[in-house]
Amino acid sequence: MAGIITLTTDFGLSDGYVGAMHGVIASLNPEARIVDITHRIGRQDVRQAAYVLQTVYPYFPKDVIHVVVVDPGVGSERRAIALRTHRACFVAPDNGVLSYIAAGEPVLETVELTNPSYWLPEVSSTFHGRDIFAPVAAHLSLAVPLSSLGRPVTQVVTFPMPEPRLALDGVLHGHVLHVDSFGNVITDIREDQLAGMKNAHVRIAGRSIEGIGRTYATGEKGTLVALVGSAGFLEIAVREGNARATLGVTVGMDVLVDPR
Amino acid sequence: MAGIITLTTDFGLSDGYVGAMHGVIASLNPEARIVDITHRIGRQDVRQAAYVLQTVYPYFPKDVIHVVVVDPGVGSERRAIALRTHRACFVAPDNGVLSYIAAGEPVLETVELTNPSYWLPEVSSTFHGRDIFAPVAAHLSLAVPLSSLGRPVTQVVTFPMPEPRLALDGVLHGHVLHVDSFGNVITDIREDQLAGMKNAHVRIAGRSIEGIGRTYATGEKGTLVALVGSAGFLEIAVREGNARATLGVTVGMDVLVDPR
Amino acid sequence: MAGIITLTTDFGLSDGYVGAMHGVIASLNPEARIVDITHRIGRQDVRQAAYVLQTVYPYFPKDVIHVVVVDPGVGSERRAIALRTHRACFVAPDNGVLSYIAAGEPVLETVELTNPSYWLPEVSSTFHGRDIFAPVAAHLSLAVPLSSLGRPVTQVVTFPMPEPRLALDGVLHGHVLHVDSFGNVITDIREDQLAGMKNAHVRIAGRSIEGIGRTYATGEKGTLVALVGSAGFLEIAVREGNARATLGVTVGMDVLVDPR
Repeated sequence: MAGIITLTTDFGLSDGYVGAMHGVIASLNPEARIVDITHRIGRQDVRQAAYVLQTVYPYFPKDVIHVVVVDPGVGSERRAIALRTHRACFVAPDNGVLSYIAAGEPVLETVELTNPSYWLPEVSSTFHGRDIFAPVAAHLSLAVPLSSLGRPVTQVVTFPMPEPRLALDGVLHGHVLHVDSFGNVITDIREDQLAGMKNAHVRIAGRSIEGIGRTYATGEKGTLVALVGSAGFLEIAVREGNARATLGVTVGMDVLVDPR
Repeated sequence: MAGIITLTTDFGLSDGYVGAMHGVIASLNPEARIVDITHRIGRQDVRQAAYVLQTVYPYFPKDVIHVVVVDPGVGSERRAIALRTHRACFVAPDNGVLSYIAAGEPVLETVELTNPSYWLPEVSSTFHGRDIFAPVAAHLSLAVPLSSLGRPVTQVVTFPMPEPRLALDGVLHGHVLHVDSFGNVITDIREDQLAGMKNAHVRIAGRSIEGIGRTYATGEKGTLVALVGSAGFLEIAVREGNARATLGVTVGMDVLVDPR
Repeated sequence: MAGIITLTTDFGLSDGYVGAMHGVIASLNPEARIVDITHRIGRQDVRQAAYVLQTVYPYFPKDVIHVVVVDPGVGSERRAIALRTHRACFVAPDNGVLSYIAAGEPVLETVELTNPSYWLPEVSSTFHGRDIFAPVAAHLSLAVPLSSLGRPVTQVVTFPMPEPRLALDGVLHGHVLHVDSFGNVITDIREDQLAGMKNAHVRIAGRSIEGIGRTYATGEKGTLVALVGSAGFLEIAVREGNARATLGVTVGMDVLVDPR
């Protein structure tokens, strides 16, 4: 293990919740390095956490341990899991937050976190991030095998992920996947699906954008721009502005790419 | 010393103030590891900083150095102190921010920071976090003894901490201790004081909540829930909502637990 | 190289953009220590980033690598550069964000980042922080010489920095340089220019402040205070308040110090 543990939560940065997780990890493995991905996931927004995680984790070294705690069901019957792929380990509630991971690469092993030997001695019913997920991640960073953490799981919870679809008339139908904090609207249409569509019209929320550009600097200040963003997806932005506010879009909304 | 220094301030994350403290520590002890607990304590809110610190520091390894800079009196006559307990070291202005620490475990040694050899060569009158507290913490992490930092202090400043009180009619009278960034209302009533009160009524801000639950997931969305929170105190929350907004509570307000 | 890399960006903390930069650096140099100065520079506010950087970097050890990504022109023709002084290395877009550095100490070497061997294999047109600046910084921390990164540059872009000016009538004319997140108004008038002016009147936005104090604690709550701030500049603050809101100032506005 590389000894790096990343944290992605919806805890915010105003309380001591993130600090307590750092403390638990440092107590169990003083050598572990912790990287805070973000603690400002929208409260209980499992889909947002899932999106952010999948865009970030490929840039980390192999065998990093990624902890995600966006956990509306904490203290209820939802399972807590650890999951291993060729690239990394993940520790999270089993609520769909690992949907992209499970869809994107082979899952080598998944366990339900049922072995309290790897938790804090006292477990609250409201803060499993501190009491279960952080200590489990610390033990993983000390080379405890996944199989020690609990019983094998064959299926993890995933949420539906609609795929973009090419209609008979040549129009590509996609969806809004994510809106970032700048108001940039990220769709599920991948760069390779846009081959030969550089001059297409992009239709979203009743507006039409002509052509697919390369950078935010394309066009006048305040105009809508369609481009391939840094995660490799078709993205709608407003130069020096906020596309979410301009368009009034929400996650799941339709986006059409019309090649004519 | 474990070589870990934690920082808790009200500096926010938009300026260079926190970065300057990191730089000072890295310059004096490149091996020190810095953990940011939070820099979003309400501006000059000494009680909030005191609460957050005491809920977090027990999760850190022994002998960590905790620096707290919430310092409305910076540049005035308030003392700057370093304090040592069995568990940890603390560096802070002497303004009550260590009240819970001093009340919670034996204080082994306290000094006023009077020795400028352990400060930056130039000390501003507005930023002791950078010029005094950070370099003192760095020197402590290099095993400088507390006694070198300044003259002994026998009494630290604490703020009044009213204790919950059991009235003759069996009703437990407590207070709002803290409101977290989710709007969860944390009281000073400890779990052990609630023994046998699982079916009690909790009264706060003119509302009554029946029964003390285990998790935020108890009850319908939007309903008030009373539960024992992750810090071991009675907590009032709203499922998928904000109890502070629902109740209009402030720190210090009365909370009653009526066992009938 | 000390192995420390600092990051200053306008990416905010809600997305995965900062996390991706951490991942890229950790992948290339697992031993590098990353310090986040701030990721809350105002969006595309090159002047604010320039100010924050110059107040912070002198507190870091020698030979730290400072990465600044506030980059309105990303993907356009603006150059990306790395620059070396006696104190530190800087990696940034060539858009004026290093103006204070270039004005403040001799620049020993500057290169344009033209050698893709030190970038990620795939470079997006919207996120050079992840694809160019982070990997270049990681390679610098591994002792790659500046000259390997690209072709020499003789002149970096700087923005105009008006100097305070002493008029014939003895009045010192300065400007608002920066407003911090507390609303403190920082001017470009340096402490040494205020010698003998302790009882001067400071005029700003139609208001007059009598005398130059030492601390925020001077005066009544809510009153305007003029003092020398922690960066060594004349600063206007409101005790327990917000001077920006009180005065309605903006960066560049005139500030007068009248010794009579």
